[in-house]
Amino acid sequence: MELLKVIEEKGTERLKRGFAKMVKGGVIMDVTTAEQALIAEEAGAVAVMALERVPADIRKAGGVARMADPKKIREIMDAVTIPVMAKARIGHYAEARALEALGVDMVDESEVLTPADTYFHIDKRKFNVPFVCGARNLGEAVRRIWEGAAMIRTKGEAGTGNIVEAVKHVRLVSHNIRLLKHLTDEQIYRVAEEFSKPYLRLAFDVKEVSGLPREILRNEPVYEEYTYEEIVEGIYKILLEIRRLQRLPVVNFAAGGVATPADAALMMQMGMDGVFVGSGIFKSSKPEKMAKAIVEAVNHYDEPEVLAEVSRDLGEPMRGLEIEKLAVRMEERGL
Amino acid sequence: MELLKVIEEKGTERLKRGFAKMVKGGVIMDVTTAEQALIAEEAGAVAVMALERVPADIRKAGGVARMADPKKIREIMDAVTIPVMAKARIGHYAEARALEALGVDMVDESEVLTPADTYFHIDKRKFNVPFVCGARNLGEAVRRIWEGAAMIRTKGEAGTGNIVEAVKHVRLVSHNIRLLKHLTDEQIYRVAEEFSKPYLRLAFDVKEVSGLPREILRNEPVYEEYTYEEIVEGIYKILLEIRRLQRLPVVNFAAGGVATPADAALMMQMGMDGVFVGSGIFKSSKPEKMAKAIVEAVNHYDEPEVLAEVSRDLGEPMRGLEIEKLAVRMEERGL
Repeated sequence: MELLKVIEEKGTERLKRGFAKMVKGGVIMDVTTAEQALIAEEAGAVAVMALERVPADIRKAGGVARMADPKKIREIMDAVTIPVMAKARIGHYAEARALEALGVDMVDESEVLTPADTYFHIDKRKFNVPFVCGARNLGEAVRRIWEGAAMIRTKGEAGTGNIVEAVKHVRLVSHNIRLLKHLTDEQIYRVAEEFSKPYLRLAFDVKEVSGLPREILRNEPVYEEYTYEEIVEGIYKILLEIRRLQRLPVVNFAAGGVATPADAALMMQMGMDGVFVGSGIFKSSKPEKMAKAIVEAVNHYDEPEVLAEVSRDLGEPMRGLEIEKLAVRMEERGL
Repeated sequence: MELLKVIEEKGTERLKRGFAKMVKGGVIMDVTTAEQALIAEEAGAVAVMALERVPADIRKAGGVARMADPKKIREIMDAVTIPVMAKARIGHYAEARALEALGVDMVDESEVLTPADTYFHIDKRKFNVPFVCGARNLGEAVRRIWEGAAMIRTKGEAGTGNIVEAVKHVRLVSHNIRLLKHLTDEQIYRVAEEFSKPYLRLAFDVKEVSGLPREILRNEPVYEEYTYEEIVEGIYKILLEIRRLQRLPVVNFAAGGVATPADAALMMQMGMDGVFVGSGIFKSSKPEKMAKAIVEAVNHYDEPEVLAEVSRDLGEPMRGLEIEKLAVRMEERGL
């Protein structure tokens, strides 16, 4: 009976969020081969992200970055016993369906790949596989949660080895959450309206029907089967929950620019639930050592002596990029 | 009893400022190896700054510049008996904690490294280790002092061997301090409000809740646990002290572009309490001689004959860079 109930619940919000909670407090590492996946597992990663290229190389290669070859993902899944995640393009639900069919443990709807849809993200409630999505601010985080994301991560600026944008996104989300506690329900509702506006962009771009009466537009779905009012209602409920909890209702990781144990520790000290490390490990000169050091730094983030110790003799960390000199800002992908 | 009191005071403002006072009148030199540290000590440096690269090389390398490898810092600490300082990125309190755990004598929260936080500097009061911070003008200096910096230095433009920006920063700070004596308390309070505005940038960037009533925002912390009014109050007190003393209440060094004994003497003649020399020594053709000459120039800064004598036959000083041609202005990092 109980089992049946669990099976029934497969794919529900609770189950998907539960999976995300299991990786809490851990480090998730980008890997491009089975060997790298084994290094990550051995170092103590709680999960790996299967990719064809790490973000730094995606950046260097340019062109359109897409879902990885399922053969590659399969190889990585066969190599390790920890959960395997994979990236789909923003809005590309065909890629996400393929990854789900392949049996990955979580899909990252990621700005590191070239977006497929400038209007919308995937309606993640329609999937059984849990999703993680990036967010630069509370509005983005709440929209992704409303769409069914089981986990949020900062966008940071992937592939740069530069922590500054991730810090900015943590600060913006945290400060906004703190301010929510001063708002009345009506004020929260107005914030919900504000946060729901990006879903109207498609409707606004269809200028030809701008003469249509408001009542008609009100009943017209603007995203999947949802009207604007239904979206506002959903986002309002999530905001009420955030105000009460004083944190996001899902697991919240740092990502985008984490390159050293100190970066990872900083993110944990700033209240993050865990850390994604993309290019930081396999673009450093001693990947095994760096991987272990970052795991140690996350496990002992409030023990500076441990941080000082594990930071010793790591060789060259990834070289990194100055944000000011970037031609492509991945973090600006998706609203 | 007396000893107990001293121990109790460990980490207090007074003790931290006291350490900074001990290096007053001296030269602090950037070093990247134990051998360089010994040359600096032998030449009479009052302290060394342990780095992986001097600023000129950081500039050349590009990419993200981070805290040095603790192994490197340890080697330098083991090599010399004078105090050893090390740099942390602006806002990267995990790096600063690691350096503190490592036992360095002072942390430089430095714009020479790539900043980790675009909003805030480290809350330096929460540390036992004293900090030095850069400042281009009185506002920056006062903000850093309010945050707990035990020592201020000009930012100059590091790695250029060009003294012009350091001169500019000395002039701006000194002139502003002189003007304070003409201001009434109320006028000083308005300056304090002006100087406190950078702490509001995060709050302003969280636009979604901009409809919040002013009274609520007044009680909301904007930086660590401090409200805007508390910050203004703290900065106001520091400004009153500066008006009375007609100097900063902490030791104030020159840094960023000091390349020759004459540069160092100029800085001392302009009222600085001492000099940091970054790339100037080990990027010159005769480092031992240059190091000694700069120490002599600082010790006898008002004796032009000595300056003329020690400036003889120093070989090539560091080549240097024109400020106008720089792609990256380090001095513009941090507010």
